[in-house]
Amino acid sequence: MTEKEIIEFLKKNFKSRKAILGIDDDCAVIKYTKNYYLILTTDTLVENVHFELNKFTWHQIGKKAIAVNISDICAMGGKPEFALISLGLPQSNYKIISDITKGIKEMSKKYKFEIIGGNLTKSEKIFIDVFMVGVVEKKYLKTRKGASPGNLIYVTGTLGASQIGKQFALSPPVFQIRQLIKKYKITSMIDISDGLSSDLIKLAERSCVGFKLYIDKIPISSDAKKISKNEMESIKHALNDGEDYEILFTAERDEKIPHKIKGTKITKIGEITEDKKYIGIYKDKIFEIKDKGFSHF
Amino acid sequence: MTEKEIIEFLKKNFKSRKAILGIDDDCAVIKYTKNYYLILTTDTLVENVHFELNKFTWHQIGKKAIAVNISDICAMGGKPEFALISLGLPQSNYKIISDITKGIKEMSKKYKFEIIGGNLTKSEKIFIDVFMVGVVEKKYLKTRKGASPGNLIYVTGTLGASQIGKQFALSPPVFQIRQLIKKYKITSMIDISDGLSSDLIKLAERSCVGFKLYIDKIPISSDAKKISKNEMESIKHALNDGEDYEILFTAERDEKIPHKIKGTKITKIGEITEDKKYIGIYKDKIFEIKDKGFSHF
Repeated sequence: MTEKEIIEFLKKNFKSRKAILGIDDDCAVIKYTKNYYLILTTDTLVENVHFELNKFTWHQIGKKAIAVNISDICAMGGKPEFALISLGLPQSNYKIISDITKGIKEMSKKYKFEIIGGNLTKSEKIFIDVFMVGVVEKKYLKTRKGASPGNLIYVTGTLGASQIGKQFALSPPVFQIRQLIKKYKITSMIDISDGLSSDLIKLAERSCVGFKLYIDKIPISSDAKKISKNEMESIKHALNDGEDYEILFTAERDEKIPHKIKGTKITKIGEITEDKKYIGIYKDKIFEIKDKGFSHF
Repeated sequence: MTEKEIIEFLKKNFKSRKAILGIDDDCAVIKYTKNYYLILTTDTLVENVHFELNKFTWHQIGKKAIAVNISDICAMGGKPEFALISLGLPQSNYKIISDITKGIKEMSKKYKFEIIGGNLTKSEKIFIDVFMVGVVEKKYLKTRKGASPGNLIYVTGTLGASQIGKQFALSPPVFQIRQLIKKYKITSMIDISDGLSSDLIKLAERSCVGFKLYIDKIPISSDAKKISKNEMESIKHALNDGEDYEILFTAERDEKIPHKIKGTKITKIGEITEDKKYIGIYKDKIFEIKDKGFSHF
């Protein structure tokens, strides 16, 4: 069973009637107040899978555990409100707990959410599982579904740096995206956690469309360039590395999307097509984009 | 750092202003609709800590992962509405995933909640972390705080069986407790997950009271009796074994609490005192009750 097959299996088994959106997007969506939805997500960091103990500080790991969840909230147009944290540790350790706490606190101040609960358990391998609760105005909710033929495809920041330092200094563009969706007609959104190729295909599948990706327009990070022998290799990093945690979105063709919002770069990288093909265009060459992003299994 | 010290450290670091209740009870509480609060909790089962792979089926483990969370929701007077599940597995395995799914589905039908999201990750040791969202009418919210001198102490079911089969056939008394709180003046509530001694002391601390526990009235499970050489040993099991997942509550002295609700036994086991001492009374002997319940560290 691939990760995709497992998710399809779970989607089939767990259909929701009470939620606005169930297992189908970056977050689940339920009703909340008159003007707001509540959006819910969970994401985990596991020792030796998402981090190795000697490479990063606990402060960084605490921050990242929060950031990957905020990224999901951000991809729905929302802002984080509350979080609960499950922590698994082999033994009680003041240094670890207080360093993780500092990292989490730093994020909670920056993104204005509160830690309201959690769970502490013994575990041979360390894990941090965050459950995050966000809110989004009903009229601003964005999902993977909604991209239409003719829409243009944009991405925030730069891609392909996940092998290096950036992955522990994540800063999901919540305030930038909130400003964007209030001003422009954004038709769909997803966060790039598994890789551009993988996540763009997920968005296209849910929106029942295809796309043309302008390969030479993809904003490649300087880190990805540094570790690459040539341009093609750096493109592959930008296309297929997981853990970028940038936001990919589509907008109506005539929207004047700015090149920068609050210091964050925004780049047009393609367009949505009616033909359900996943096409890359690079120097007059046309090829098929395949899902080569990160998969756990 | 003991588990208690860690929780105190986290409580001090993570104070909430937006939530009705933060890190302080079985669940966090936030506003929801006009008449309801939303209650949020998370609890994890970890391989070799909460279960061993050869002793229980995946179906049982899936059910238990849900039950321990429902128990928290139940202890606030609520009913479960939604859950998100984080699953860590060493490799993709159809049998494990489909058996866990069956166990979870069985519980979702019985308790009428829906699975609306989750996360799948690679992990050397298996873990299931459930995040559960429940609702409770504002007027029926119960917490650990609220027990007053003169109140009587009650417990559902029987205690001290956690070493044996019961711990994987948990059935939190949600419907029974819901009926109870609608009819009688219940002043405080907690679930017995760490052990009667430990959880009753937690309730007393939060309510700023003491208690007298009628040791010979504690309903000891037949399983606890079976594994005990004498009565005193079985009492110790009932007092200090974790994982009972029964509900302990206090009620006004003149409330006519029934001995049974919907088939679930309810037993009066003590009374709340103004004097902040934790007293056990057994055959005219008086002794101090100490927190000897389960602790992860």
